[in-house]
Amino acid sequence: MNRLPIKELPWLSATGPYSTIVISSRVRIARNLKAFKFDAKLTDKEAENLLALIADVLKTSTEGEYFDFSLLNPIEIQSLLESHLISPDFATSKKKRGLFLLKSGNCAIMINEEDHLRIQALVSGFDFEGSFEVANRIEELLDSQLELAFDETFGYLTSCPTNVGTGLRVSAFLHLPGLVLTKEIEKVLRGAMTIGLAVRGVFGEGSDIRGNLFQISNQITLGSSEAEIIETLKRPTEQIIQYELKARDSLSKHAPIELEDKIFRALAILKSARLLTSIEATNLLSAVRLGVEMGLIKDYSLALINRLMILLRPANLQLYLGRSLTPNDRDIERAKLFQRMLRDGG
Amino acid sequence: MNRLPIKELPWLSATGPYSTIVISSRVRIARNLKAFKFDAKLTDKEAENLLALIADVLKTSTEGEYFDFSLLNPIEIQSLLESHLISPDFATSKKKRGLFLLKSGNCAIMINEEDHLRIQALVSGFDFEGSFEVANRIEELLDSQLELAFDETFGYLTSCPTNVGTGLRVSAFLHLPGLVLTKEIEKVLRGAMTIGLAVRGVFGEGSDIRGNLFQISNQITLGSSEAEIIETLKRPTEQIIQYELKARDSLSKHAPIELEDKIFRALAILKSARLLTSIEATNLLSAVRLGVEMGLIKDYSLALINRLMILLRPANLQLYLGRSLTPNDRDIERAKLFQRMLRDGG
Repeated sequence: MNRLPIKELPWLSATGPYSTIVISSRVRIARNLKAFKFDAKLTDKEAENLLALIADVLKTSTEGEYFDFSLLNPIEIQSLLESHLISPDFATSKKKRGLFLLKSGNCAIMINEEDHLRIQALVSGFDFEGSFEVANRIEELLDSQLELAFDETFGYLTSCPTNVGTGLRVSAFLHLPGLVLTKEIEKVLRGAMTIGLAVRGVFGEGSDIRGNLFQISNQITLGSSEAEIIETLKRPTEQIIQYELKARDSLSKHAPIELEDKIFRALAILKSARLLTSIEATNLLSAVRLGVEMGLIKDYSLALINRLMILLRPANLQLYLGRSLTPNDRDIERAKLFQRMLRDGG
Repeated sequence: MNRLPIKELPWLSATGPYSTIVISSRVRIARNLKAFKFDAKLTDKEAENLLALIADVLKTSTEGEYFDFSLLNPIEIQSLLESHLISPDFATSKKKRGLFLLKSGNCAIMINEEDHLRIQALVSGFDFEGSFEVANRIEELLDSQLELAFDETFGYLTSCPTNVGTGLRVSAFLHLPGLVLTKEIEKVLRGAMTIGLAVRGVFGEGSDIRGNLFQISNQITLGSSEAEIIETLKRPTEQIIQYELKARDSLSKHAPIELEDKIFRALAILKSARLLTSIEATNLLSAVRLGVEMGLIKDYSLALINRLMILLRPANLQLYLGRSLTPNDRDIERAKLFQRMLRDGG
């Protein structure tokens, strides 16, 4: 592969609704082929046959490009994960896997994830419907060419029972520095969990928040229509957006200098440091992003900040620079990258 | 008073020998008047008479200006202390005090400190002889007009026995970031203490090092000539200078990127922060100073850095801006000052 897909990732464009808070809206549809066993019972040989069958169908499409995972190196696989194009399970799986990336850059199909097919669409901003439209169109294309496992009573059948029915999972990728700074984040996220939503930090492990980035998603798909599932997530997300706006407003009013101090220090460090770990860069970039979002920093676009947020990650950085780097060299090169991109205004 | 003496303080000029390490060399001569009791036994009335007598002599001089301490406000007194023109004891004393500041800016006479007269001279860089010359000339002038307490056997008599003889105390104000970064500082300072020298952080309390600034001085003056006392401090200071140079050299060789990272982050924060406490500013300025001293930063003179180091202190800042400020407002104004001075290159 050796080309970084993030140059063309439309979900980083910051063009969708409320893109100062919602970085992207994602929809994932799980499907399985009727003629094959589910993941847990699928032998290696069967997985290989399944992959070959689907690959043959996809390769006839001019809409995108097919990648055989056995031909990708670990940095390329890690880069796909860092770019939100594949799932963590898919990245580390030992199975024969394939990936179809749409040229439009807003949709990927994972083959041999937990389900035989996982269609994932990502669009900029707060736009679940837009995201669903993209994924649904691809699902229909596949449905027309492959016989999918479907039951009149339950709907689409999936490897894990929580996905049975629509096989739909919807999520939003949120930037919530206001709620973190006003210390309201826990209360807000607990509220979302109470109504059955899953919430997690995007880049951190467990409770370790990085860059004030959070992902909120539905957990159960059984017994609801697609429209209902989208609605289940849409309303609380709207509410979180309002809370975040209020928190930012409150910061502007009650701690304007502390806020500017945080933002302009972060920008200054990103422009001047000679060593930057990905954790520190992510956290500093969050403050700069808040500055751009609130109009305090006018020299950079949100699209550039989004791009940097993804580009700074270890594998993406190495692919971007075209060479493998030790962790220490990555910190040096990351600092150089930020200097270049922020001093030149991108 | 209401004028900040630091504009004219020659000891901040960074022109003397080794001024990349030794900020200033100070000499203090203690003298007492024969006709008056020593400090501990001096009544308030006697202290007042003593002050009036000395003030009358000093006021005839065209070399400087006399200040009655009872006419100075607490910010002005604090500013004199921050500018190294008076001692901490003198600043907080309840006695009737007076100060004579030489126009040249390199010498001050405290009246009614622990001794009746304390003549203190400060010059830029590593130059004890130069500093002694200034103080000695003033001492001779006073000696010609006042009858000083002198004993043929012991020499000049002082309030505290440790000062008897020459009444001379010599000290150097050192910037030792290299030894702090290489963690050799403790060993080096312990070595100095072993041979009877006093070492302390300049702005911090106790063991709290701020801005990597240290003061080294002799402790005992009895039984040695002036030249011997100067020599006692000169050799170990020379050695510390060599250790510091070696430490800086080692940092350039073995950790050049970590060093640059530290220096350029500090500069970026000083230029961009909206809130700066005096502790943080002092520490950041130390890193910038190291950058200037090592030629990594070429936009600023050491004289500017020295000036900022003194100007950033609370009372100096308020006098400079011509108004009294709350601690929080000081942090805001300090940040503005750094932005202005460093963005405009001073």
